[in-house]
Amino acid sequence: MTITKTVAKGLEGVIVGDSSICLIDGNEGRLIYRGYDIHDVAANLTFEEVAYLLWYGDLPTRTQLSDLKKRLREERPIPGNLKALIRSLPLSSNTLDVLRTTISALGTGTPLKKPDISDAISITAKIPTINATFDRLRRGKEPMDPRPELGHAANYIYMLTGKEPDSIKTDALNKYFILLADHGMNSSTFTARIVASTWSDMYSAVTAAIGALKGPLHGGAPAPVLQMLKDIGSPDRAEAWMRDELKAGRRLMGFGHRLYRTTDPRAEILREIASTTADKKFFELARQVEETGIRVLQEDKPDRKLYTNVEFYSAVVMDSVGLPTDLFTATFAASRTAGWSANVLEQVANNRLIRPETEYTGPRDRKVVPIDKR
Amino acid sequence: MTITKTVAKGLEGVIVGDSSICLIDGNEGRLIYRGYDIHDVAANLTFEEVAYLLWYGDLPTRTQLSDLKKRLREERPIPGNLKALIRSLPLSSNTLDVLRTTISALGTGTPLKKPDISDAISITAKIPTINATFDRLRRGKEPMDPRPELGHAANYIYMLTGKEPDSIKTDALNKYFILLADHGMNSSTFTARIVASTWSDMYSAVTAAIGALKGPLHGGAPAPVLQMLKDIGSPDRAEAWMRDELKAGRRLMGFGHRLYRTTDPRAEILREIASTTADKKFFELARQVEETGIRVLQEDKPDRKLYTNVEFYSAVVMDSVGLPTDLFTATFAASRTAGWSANVLEQVANNRLIRPETEYTGPRDRKVVPIDKR
Repeated sequence: MTITKTVAKGLEGVIVGDSSICLIDGNEGRLIYRGYDIHDVAANLTFEEVAYLLWYGDLPTRTQLSDLKKRLREERPIPGNLKALIRSLPLSSNTLDVLRTTISALGTGTPLKKPDISDAISITAKIPTINATFDRLRRGKEPMDPRPELGHAANYIYMLTGKEPDSIKTDALNKYFILLADHGMNSSTFTARIVASTWSDMYSAVTAAIGALKGPLHGGAPAPVLQMLKDIGSPDRAEAWMRDELKAGRRLMGFGHRLYRTTDPRAEILREIASTTADKKFFELARQVEETGIRVLQEDKPDRKLYTNVEFYSAVVMDSVGLPTDLFTATFAASRTAGWSANVLEQVANNRLIRPETEYTGPRDRKVVPIDKR
Repeated sequence: MTITKTVAKGLEGVIVGDSSICLIDGNEGRLIYRGYDIHDVAANLTFEEVAYLLWYGDLPTRTQLSDLKKRLREERPIPGNLKALIRSLPLSSNTLDVLRTTISALGTGTPLKKPDISDAISITAKIPTINATFDRLRRGKEPMDPRPELGHAANYIYMLTGKEPDSIKTDALNKYFILLADHGMNSSTFTARIVASTWSDMYSAVTAAIGALKGPLHGGAPAPVLQMLKDIGSPDRAEAWMRDELKAGRRLMGFGHRLYRTTDPRAEILREIASTTADKKFFELARQVEETGIRVLQEDKPDRKLYTNVEFYSAVVMDSVGLPTDLFTATFAASRTAGWSANVLEQVANNRLIRPETEYTGPRDRKVVPIDKR
């Protein structure tokens, strides 16, 4: 006998399984990776250490870290056929479409195998290279080879700009990469786990996740946030602008998160980073827009207080380190791929095919009328 | 206040939402598309009519059908840059990897837009062309252009073989395409809907679904079924072979389905088709393996009777119309894309972001030890 359960639309508040990777406490505003508080993680680790932590469950020893860094460095260059593929795509392409296609192509030519850490390392190492290669090509510049002596974050800025970044920018992007690396069963991670649950491979899972991240309700929000800040232009225009948006039935991008009932700890840390990297006036504008938005939304939806989410200050930080707006979501992917792959590894270690059901609400008992009588 | 619910692992028996596309009654062994029983559908419709039915909810009039056929025909050819992309991929690639990459590339170069019927038509028309192009290239042959006067099924066989198929083969493949076109909230369809729920696009959703279909627990089973039949070779060896598999802890491919407690109606219809298209001796072998498998599995798992699933006779039918074994799952995709896109359209018509949660089972309250002390 099958027992069927109906759950909330969008699976809101539904626990679909166990995980030891990430804890989100939305009431307390806490985020924990493998037992470590996100404040502690962001203050004291590099992205490479966080990737190790997410994949293996513990922090690396010095030797383990140096091994991982070596493997990541070696995996950064992309093969010639992928370079040619990127060159063949329209220069006007959405950067997520380029990334999705290139990661998919990276997965061709090898027999189907169970996802493993080497796949996670290869993909994590190559996403920055793919993003930077396409970004330079569309700006009419030749792609840069990765620089092995630079860390993950610094090398990304280097490949994009051709210049080694200062330590403030490197640190800001490193922290951004850490903060966005995992976040429970978000839509793209859930997508990756479902794909892996069919015994498909890591490339299929990450390709699928990139497609989910593209959506404006998930990873596609930071660029509209920056656009909003630019449209508002000065703090005194914030209130009228935002009220007009709400009146027109549009959402304010960068505010609210399904899980947080208080401030998102990542937004707090990113705000602090932005205060050191962003243009003073622009940061002040962002602060005022944040305050105004919280107030205006509170009046609009009195039953639930909405705060700025991770996308809001992500946009300000990414802009401040020199990333082009339409590379924001692809840069999010460069971070979240650590979490996607950690989740895929957790899924296949104790797998059960993810295959739910629906409640049928359509007609019944119709009879086909042949085409010549229709 | 958030109410969290824990549900069964793999979302087994969990109803994740409403749908008016497809009803599966696993106890009665019934499958209904938009109100029409699958037996009625398979006996009286073409794949093009079924695609229309899934997308629009009703059967087309003669004019509507002729319009849809025209649009599908016009969308069959693939652009030159996609042909070049397929040529650039390793000839040894898994056909699902090629399809995933090519559909992803097809989605590049256009601005993000809400999924619509024109996307569904474009993808459904092009998948056979992509599969056939790659299959001919890897066999050292030049790809064939699609033939506009042929229907969806006949044109697919033509593009693969260079010969127009007889009506028996055309009819068999047409029925296969119909039977596999949709099946509720299976893993690949669920994947497509999650991607669409983020407000991402149709190409991202279908690309993701292809990656999920690749897995042997989902769409990857028909090829191993054929291998099993060939390994067994003659009916008298079936029982020993299958008992050995079970003893070795492996599953018998082509048996059992999470939803059906009785025979899968698609398997019944495919068995009948196979009886007219397959080599007599090979069909007899399949029948004997089916009977033996049901009996052996019944002894092995007395609490639940397992029947052959849709993959079992899918393999026999696809083999009998001349499809190469390693094109079985990509051919499944050529059918299921109708259902994927219908589900994406239904999702975005009344959307809510699909974003569940997990139960955290990892450590808490760990403190980061700096790297030089580790």
